[in-house]
Amino acid sequence: MEQLVQATLQGDRRALARLLTTVENAREGTDHTLAALFPHTGRAWIIGVTGSPGTGKSSLVNALAKAFRRREQTVGVVAVDPTSPFSGGAIMGDRIRMRDLAGDKGVFIRSMATRGSLGGLARATRDVIRVLDAAGFGVIFVETVGAGQSEVDIARTAQTTIVVEAPGLGDEVQAIKAGILEIADVLVVNKADRPGADNTARALRAMLEMGHPAAREQLARHHGQLVAVESSANGSVPLWVPPVVRTVAPDDQGIDELMTALEAHRQHLRESEAAVRLERQRIEIELYDRLEAALMARLLATVPDDVFAEVIRRIQRRELDPHAAVETILARLDQRA
Amino acid sequence: MEQLVQATLQGDRRALARLLTTVENAREGTDHTLAALFPHTGRAWIIGVTGSPGTGKSSLVNALAKAFRRREQTVGVVAVDPTSPFSGGAIMGDRIRMRDLAGDKGVFIRSMATRGSLGGLARATRDVIRVLDAAGFGVIFVETVGAGQSEVDIARTAQTTIVVEAPGLGDEVQAIKAGILEIADVLVVNKADRPGADNTARALRAMLEMGHPAAREQLARHHGQLVAVESSANGSVPLWVPPVVRTVAPDDQGIDELMTALEAHRQHLRESEAAVRLERQRIEIELYDRLEAALMARLLATVPDDVFAEVIRRIQRRELDPHAAVETILARLDQRA
Repeated sequence: MEQLVQATLQGDRRALARLLTTVENAREGTDHTLAALFPHTGRAWIIGVTGSPGTGKSSLVNALAKAFRRREQTVGVVAVDPTSPFSGGAIMGDRIRMRDLAGDKGVFIRSMATRGSLGGLARATRDVIRVLDAAGFGVIFVETVGAGQSEVDIARTAQTTIVVEAPGLGDEVQAIKAGILEIADVLVVNKADRPGADNTARALRAMLEMGHPAAREQLARHHGQLVAVESSANGSVPLWVPPVVRTVAPDDQGIDELMTALEAHRQHLRESEAAVRLERQRIEIELYDRLEAALMARLLATVPDDVFAEVIRRIQRRELDPHAAVETILARLDQRA
Repeated sequence: MEQLVQATLQGDRRALARLLTTVENAREGTDHTLAALFPHTGRAWIIGVTGSPGTGKSSLVNALAKAFRRREQTVGVVAVDPTSPFSGGAIMGDRIRMRDLAGDKGVFIRSMATRGSLGGLARATRDVIRVLDAAGFGVIFVETVGAGQSEVDIARTAQTTIVVEAPGLGDEVQAIKAGILEIADVLVVNKADRPGADNTARALRAMLEMGHPAAREQLARHHGQLVAVESSANGSVPLWVPPVVRTVAPDDQGIDELMTALEAHRQHLRESEAAVRLERQRIEIELYDRLEAALMARLLATVPDDVFAEVIRRIQRRELDPHAAVETILARLDQRA
């Protein structure tokens, strides 16, 4: 394992692939591997890409990966599909993606499908990103499919989050994106050559003005109105207003503008010290998750199985309510500790 | 609070509404309230309704609620929208629903929007269902919007889960439903008067045959093939194969067939003792969640804030890796305990 870590740090792709498999499956020794890699992390620019199915996220990531390659940056791609129960889907996805970027040693693509729980997936994604970061990839894309909390959770890993929309997906799909808008640093209307692109861009701007604190503030200033807005943690730096960029990914249309918007956001992160603040938040969340898991592991190792079984039986008979059950089990833990 | 509980158990709607607000906001004393209600729970039939936006879940729940009312059963509806950050959405949703069922004392509708975390929402949903159960509602619908893990988590609360599909939502939307199919007890093609309903029904059946253990087994028998299938916990009762029912909810088309399918599933639950097994699983999950929360609350109350702050600083400087950080904090917990 030590050798695998050293080879990965030196840019060995086969070692990297093997290490990722070990980490993804959370095999024995993963903690020590990740600990050995940890001092080498924190250098990559992590870019989240999220949005509904049908918006063309994968083509967009492909186009962006090529644009970064032209600027001689190395690119990692982690494609996360929390909804697919078929691991085959992930493998097929890899092959389809590979077509375009195949043979380029500066690109590394990894697809991840569901393994048990969403929590498990989020953890595995975090670890995979960390390995790619330590392996020296300059830009790491994290692409998530679907809509909802899973995106928000996984987007927390990213420093810059792109939310992708496309014309003609229907109003209801738009409405559901409200929650995702809040995490957007850059908004993309992809497939912008389709009819309705203007409407989509307008709807996104309207939603931004409604829902995004910085956009609300900008709007309020523009109208000369007094509107209560959240104040930024660092008052001296202007708030970031997510730009709306139109792209046609397969034709590279709008990709230069998108690259400019991304670089501007990276610059903003540096100047506002938001990058440091965001990393602290990420670390807090990770620490919390890990502590929760460690405490439960201790509890399950300490309290005998038959105590749990008996408590569950009593709850099912309505002799014990769940709150009292927790107190019963914690009392047993304290006796044994 | 004691009075509120008594009034709720006696069918007082205003007391019920106030109690639900208390429980939803997890106010002080909620645990004792829920403990007092707990012996009165376990009688309702909880039906989950899930599916993509645009499938007409709300109209379907409305039509089913009316059908159950015609059979003189009382109906509770819990509409959960984990993606909406605007609580206004939930309130508006209530009003729109109310139009149809307004004034009927045998129906109680509650909409819930995001509050902080998905975990928090799942917990609040569970508690709200429990209150409605104790208040004597015979059938409780839990309607969830979106796609993905949130549905799976919330569906675990239900005894019978309806997955709703509609024609013309595109192939990608179909593909994303694969994960949800696994939790379906009854599949509905709603808006079945639209073109493409046949294709949708066919696609669902094909996915069922691919992904659902019971359907796979049925298929294998039909073809006389030997196929590895999961065996049921109770071998003597036939596995449940989810039927596919077509509906046009606003016209009550197909609602009788759907009611028959639902009753058949309820009968299956009784005969197979699956209801008891499912309840045990639900209780296990709840107990696990509650223990996790209780253990973290203890840890946060025991280990001083400055220890956390220092550990986070050291991780951010890459002096400490997250795994070692957990060990450091647990060591502090042990010192103090």
